[in-house]
Amino acid sequence: MDAKEYLKESSKKVDKPIKSYIEDQEPMRLIEASRQYPYAGGKRMRPVIVLAACGAVGGDKKKAMPLAVAIEYIHNFTLIHDDIMDGDSERRGMTTIHVAYDVPTAILAGDALFAKAFQIIADLDVPTDRIRDILRYVTKAVWDLARGQEFDTMNEGKFISEKQYLETIKLKTGVLFAAAAAGGAIAGGADKKTVENINKYALAMGLGFQMFDDYLGIMGDTSKTGKSVGNDIRKGKCTLMVTYTIENLKDEKQLTAFKKILGNPKATEAQVRKAVKIMQDVGAVDYNRKEAEKMVKKAKKYLKYLPETEEKEFMLSLADFAINRES
Amino acid sequence: MDAKEYLKESSKKVDKPIKSYIEDQEPMRLIEASRQYPYAGGKRMRPVIVLAACGAVGGDKKKAMPLAVAIEYIHNFTLIHDDIMDGDSERRGMTTIHVAYDVPTAILAGDALFAKAFQIIADLDVPTDRIRDILRYVTKAVWDLARGQEFDTMNEGKFISEKQYLETIKLKTGVLFAAAAAGGAIAGGADKKTVENINKYALAMGLGFQMFDDYLGIMGDTSKTGKSVGNDIRKGKCTLMVTYTIENLKDEKQLTAFKKILGNPKATEAQVRKAVKIMQDVGAVDYNRKEAEKMVKKAKKYLKYLPETEEKEFMLSLADFAINRES
Repeated sequence: MDAKEYLKESSKKVDKPIKSYIEDQEPMRLIEASRQYPYAGGKRMRPVIVLAACGAVGGDKKKAMPLAVAIEYIHNFTLIHDDIMDGDSERRGMTTIHVAYDVPTAILAGDALFAKAFQIIADLDVPTDRIRDILRYVTKAVWDLARGQEFDTMNEGKFISEKQYLETIKLKTGVLFAAAAAGGAIAGGADKKTVENINKYALAMGLGFQMFDDYLGIMGDTSKTGKSVGNDIRKGKCTLMVTYTIENLKDEKQLTAFKKILGNPKATEAQVRKAVKIMQDVGAVDYNRKEAEKMVKKAKKYLKYLPETEEKEFMLSLADFAINRES
Repeated sequence: MDAKEYLKESSKKVDKPIKSYIEDQEPMRLIEASRQYPYAGGKRMRPVIVLAACGAVGGDKKKAMPLAVAIEYIHNFTLIHDDIMDGDSERRGMTTIHVAYDVPTAILAGDALFAKAFQIIADLDVPTDRIRDILRYVTKAVWDLARGQEFDTMNEGKFISEKQYLETIKLKTGVLFAAAAAGGAIAGGADKKTVENINKYALAMGLGFQMFDDYLGIMGDTSKTGKSVGNDIRKGKCTLMVTYTIENLKDEKQLTAFKKILGNPKATEAQVRKAVKIMQDVGAVDYNRKEAEKMVKKAKKYLKYLPETEEKEFMLSLADFAINRES
């Protein structure tokens, strides 16, 4: 199965529902600000995972659709707040909310999306004890997302360990993927053990996804990723490749040069290329790829006991796609 | 019954639970930031209302205690975010979170408290269909709070109508009081009609409370309110007294002078006193008091059909206290 194609088809199906839950209401300024990100599209990976997990356990995907929307709103709420904190003025070619509107409106648009997500979950057409279980996964995910972003804020400009890197991407990316998958499975009527396995699948897949994202950040084709290659280097983003380089580069002179380039917003193109070459030469890029592959292999194992369905097939190929893509 | 005394006693009972739900966890910086406001105390009106409403319908107040905590966390989450937006550096004598820490940590501390509140609600020891009903009230309240704060942001420095004033305080203050009361009643096992009446009681009481708060803001004893009299005037806060003055002051010259003082951060003490006197002379202060009294009278009527209990007695006297207090 072509995961990219399936993702594209499925994302079309969630598009309309995503645009149907935020009604016109005063003040429209807030409504428009909260709509901007979810309406603009994107990969829609999280909502599609909700639906796939529901289908994979034999559930009625229609009943999981509102949850898919809620998970996408939560993702977008965190993006809006992250953009304020990171001081980013652009996302996916759009002006970010706090720049297009103002910081107060951006904070409120995030809060409003957050509230709307839980309103939608409360209204799900599934047994109420399952709503409670879904809430437990989702609230835990949001709590962890805040922790992960705080780690990021605190570690800006610092060199962290591999262990800290893994913990941060787990909190920042893994847990919401995991909650999306677990939520879909719960809505689909899965038993506890199955929910746990699907949860673990998505967590591991999310980690692999993030590692590969970091790879694309420095090695990807800018015309496809939409990100400049120097971006992560100049921002000093602490990826697995960076932690590996710091921990394994023996040449003191090179290490000093590497550390000087990393996080230097004024680093030249030549310096950026030099930093990338250092990471390649020390084996950090290979190491990152192998670790991402390990994660994906681990993720797929958790799906072993699921019956053969189109959705399972998609989830397996999505794991492969997470570490084999151009954008 | 002495509402103030009952409130004081009850607030002691909620204090310990409020300090028990946020566990030590890394990063501690975020945990400490999220604890600061809820741990610092305050009137605890919202959590006490949750418990009172539960008791008033014959429910087990112990089971409503976690909801009381959740409502207080939601209140505190909005305070943290509001302080960022309003650029306030002090609250109740404490340095605000975004100043004591930084803006990212303050945004995240608010988000984390929000997530924790819903985590607590998901875990309530009440039938799950009642959890769903509680969620509907609470998520609607948070959505409305965001709308109210956005109205405030948009209307800064503008003169709004009485209708807009009432809508804004309903969203900013009324709905969370109302959700607290409705939530407590639902947790206590009340029927739909009773929940609605208790909800309406708290909404009307909240509006009266806010109007009286505005009164204290300009006429209160600074040593008791902790707020300088000129604060609201210099900030140009649009209270009912201001809208009434703008709509009813016939003397053009005085009106121009009044408008010039309002919202002028550099207004002198003499100018502040002049603005207050203009509001008094045109009858705005009296009008505000009468409207607050009407609200409280209306609020109390909604409790008519409740059996006579200590909690009902408290809720009635709380309504009187809302418009008869020094701080």
